[in-house]
Amino acid sequence: MLAEIITIGDEILIGQIVDTNSAFLGKEFNKIGISIYQITSIQDNKTHILKALEEAENNADIIIITGGLGPTKDDVTKHTICEYFNDTLVENKSVLDNVEDIFSKYNIPLLDVNKQQALVPSKAKVLMNHYGTAPGMWLEKNGKVFVSLPGVPYEMKALISNEVIPALRKQFKFPYIKHKTILTYGLGESLLAKRIEAWEDNLPAFIKLAYLPSLGRVRLRLSAKAMEKKLIDTEIQKQVDLLLPLIDDVFVGFEEDKSLEAIIGTQLTEISKTLSIAESCTGGSIAKALTANAGASKYFKGSVVSYATESKMNILGVKEQDIESHSVVSKEIAEAMAKNVRTLFNTDFGISTTGNAGPSKGDADADVGTVWIAIATQDSVYSEVFNFGNHREKVITKATNKAFEMLQKEIKKK
Amino acid sequence: MLAEIITIGDEILIGQIVDTNSAFLGKEFNKIGISIYQITSIQDNKTHILKALEEAENNADIIIITGGLGPTKDDVTKHTICEYFNDTLVENKSVLDNVEDIFSKYNIPLLDVNKQQALVPSKAKVLMNHYGTAPGMWLEKNGKVFVSLPGVPYEMKALISNEVIPALRKQFKFPYIKHKTILTYGLGESLLAKRIEAWEDNLPAFIKLAYLPSLGRVRLRLSAKAMEKKLIDTEIQKQVDLLLPLIDDVFVGFEEDKSLEAIIGTQLTEISKTLSIAESCTGGSIAKALTANAGASKYFKGSVVSYATESKMNILGVKEQDIESHSVVSKEIAEAMAKNVRTLFNTDFGISTTGNAGPSKGDADADVGTVWIAIATQDSVYSEVFNFGNHREKVITKATNKAFEMLQKEIKKK
Repeated sequence: MLAEIITIGDEILIGQIVDTNSAFLGKEFNKIGISIYQITSIQDNKTHILKALEEAENNADIIIITGGLGPTKDDVTKHTICEYFNDTLVENKSVLDNVEDIFSKYNIPLLDVNKQQALVPSKAKVLMNHYGTAPGMWLEKNGKVFVSLPGVPYEMKALISNEVIPALRKQFKFPYIKHKTILTYGLGESLLAKRIEAWEDNLPAFIKLAYLPSLGRVRLRLSAKAMEKKLIDTEIQKQVDLLLPLIDDVFVGFEEDKSLEAIIGTQLTEISKTLSIAESCTGGSIAKALTANAGASKYFKGSVVSYATESKMNILGVKEQDIESHSVVSKEIAEAMAKNVRTLFNTDFGISTTGNAGPSKGDADADVGTVWIAIATQDSVYSEVFNFGNHREKVITKATNKAFEMLQKEIKKK
Repeated sequence: MLAEIITIGDEILIGQIVDTNSAFLGKEFNKIGISIYQITSIQDNKTHILKALEEAENNADIIIITGGLGPTKDDVTKHTICEYFNDTLVENKSVLDNVEDIFSKYNIPLLDVNKQQALVPSKAKVLMNHYGTAPGMWLEKNGKVFVSLPGVPYEMKALISNEVIPALRKQFKFPYIKHKTILTYGLGESLLAKRIEAWEDNLPAFIKLAYLPSLGRVRLRLSAKAMEKKLIDTEIQKQVDLLLPLIDDVFVGFEEDKSLEAIIGTQLTEISKTLSIAESCTGGSIAKALTANAGASKYFKGSVVSYATESKMNILGVKEQDIESHSVVSKEIAEAMAKNVRTLFNTDFGISTTGNAGPSKGDADADVGTVWIAIATQDSVYSEVFNFGNHREKVITKATNKAFEMLQKEIKKK
């Protein structure tokens, strides 16, 4: 089954925003066996929207349209969709109630233009948006499903998860689909490909392999799709068992669907352990990633972002003479930070980072990209040093990911 | 002048990566007066690529193709481009030298498959890639320019900035283009639109206005394009002068290419003032946003993410009886946190957040979405309370943005 995504609006084409919606849709649809045939981003221009709808109808079974539903006058999407379906706009009482509720809750005057959000094509099934005023709209034509959704990411995501996917599952029979993603580290894409060439050539036709390289890692994704669950599960496991001995030295683990920090959160909750962090070069990035998950307060007690050297001393109690003799970016300081933050917050685990994210050298003499990461537990502390390259954002992200990887290893020991 | 972007590769369609390249291209092309007509993301499938190239040739003057140039066997882009131009692949000596240099520098064995990176269509002008092995390729057909680039973001970006844009400027005469973006906050898109309706209706035809709303802020973007620089500069200034009195109470500033936190960083550096943060519900998000900018250590001393209530007492010295009598999410606690973190880090400004990001009620009884934000200076402390709705990610982002807005107002007073 094929889907096409049409994103509407100037913002993406002028580069004002990055289109994160399509990646979300691609991921969610793939999980249930729908492949994205094409993503098309266009302006909210009537002729262009009509052309895109027509082409999408020819290419795909499901057409998801995001964006173009704002209240200001530059949005023409809803009228154009109406025209495409040879339909007229009618006021929907439930949507109007929702719009009025939102405005009265936030005490904002309701304008006529806001009330227009309640106008929907008469043939549309309304999908209620609990986070905003623009509803989702489900329409059908020649056996194809068209869904128009607001472009605001969290509104769109909630509608997809709570409304669209359940409705699609009801309407269509999807094949069983399984992805298994194998994470490898330290070998480039082409060397890896050469090493597993014979194995790859012998894969059964219904299993596809993709190479997904990014920042020092290559993910190998096996995908299988068929109506029979048992066949797929058995065959994927068989192929993984054949593959693993070939990549033993570069194999890191299997990637599940959740972020590593969400998995760690679940694990910490299960074993009733707590965590605190002392972040220097990662500047709050580890804490932010953890607290993005609901329920983080169960295991995360807090963090000290000790950006200035003196705060490592004043708040974390790192000794001045240790900083002088070892420098701020060192094994000794990383380990002292992890130990002391664990004591300060009275937690089971303490993590710390100290390094230089660049672009220029900081308080320490360490090369740009050098990062020490330490983990302290009740009875031990250990650390590792990395060089994550010369791109600031990349250094921060890699250090954050690595800290979670190290923490997970430590949790697994418990 | 119109451009179309074709991104090739499975990764975007299955949601494995977010397409950040297109936003970069949109931004850079807009600056020189090229509008993006459409962005099309497709798999590396021959038929589909040929179809996309043909349609793009009909729609646009410049076609940028990114991705699909990796060494593994699932990439068919180069052969398909060759077929589209009725051309054959030939080995390019300079590219081969570059590939060999890169492999010997990192001491990786060079495989035949890597050498194939040096094969390019004979009609292509090669654009040398200094960060990777896949070269850029410039081709022309019926007066249209086609540029094929690697999909790795920093390789693509370097080729666009150093090769493609200079070459386009040489080949075409571009109109003068100017964008002016006005940042407002506190008034929704539709109320703002209503308030400036008369002004908007009187804009000259060559000036376009776009509303770019995001989480509590609305950016108003004026764009003008013409051959005459002086006319545009004068007219944009005139319109801005007419607009500002209408939005005096919600006007924040002009947005250059920078984020508000980057602007704040520059301002703090200029006035030599420093900042520390006590984050509860924002969980490190404010610190992370600040430290994403190089040079943050000049003005940012550090943050305490006091997620657990006891850490507000132990580390920030908030009094237990105050928490008991006012609750954790209150004016009193927010202000105590801001004052105390300022003292703890010995900074000019202290910011704090305490609230409930949801989805369920936490330590306090405050409604989901309630956030107190306080700012302390040497001689004052003040706070405001907000309700940012019922979506965790949105509450955190809105609270982070609002904290920066409050801080900027405070900085402006200095």
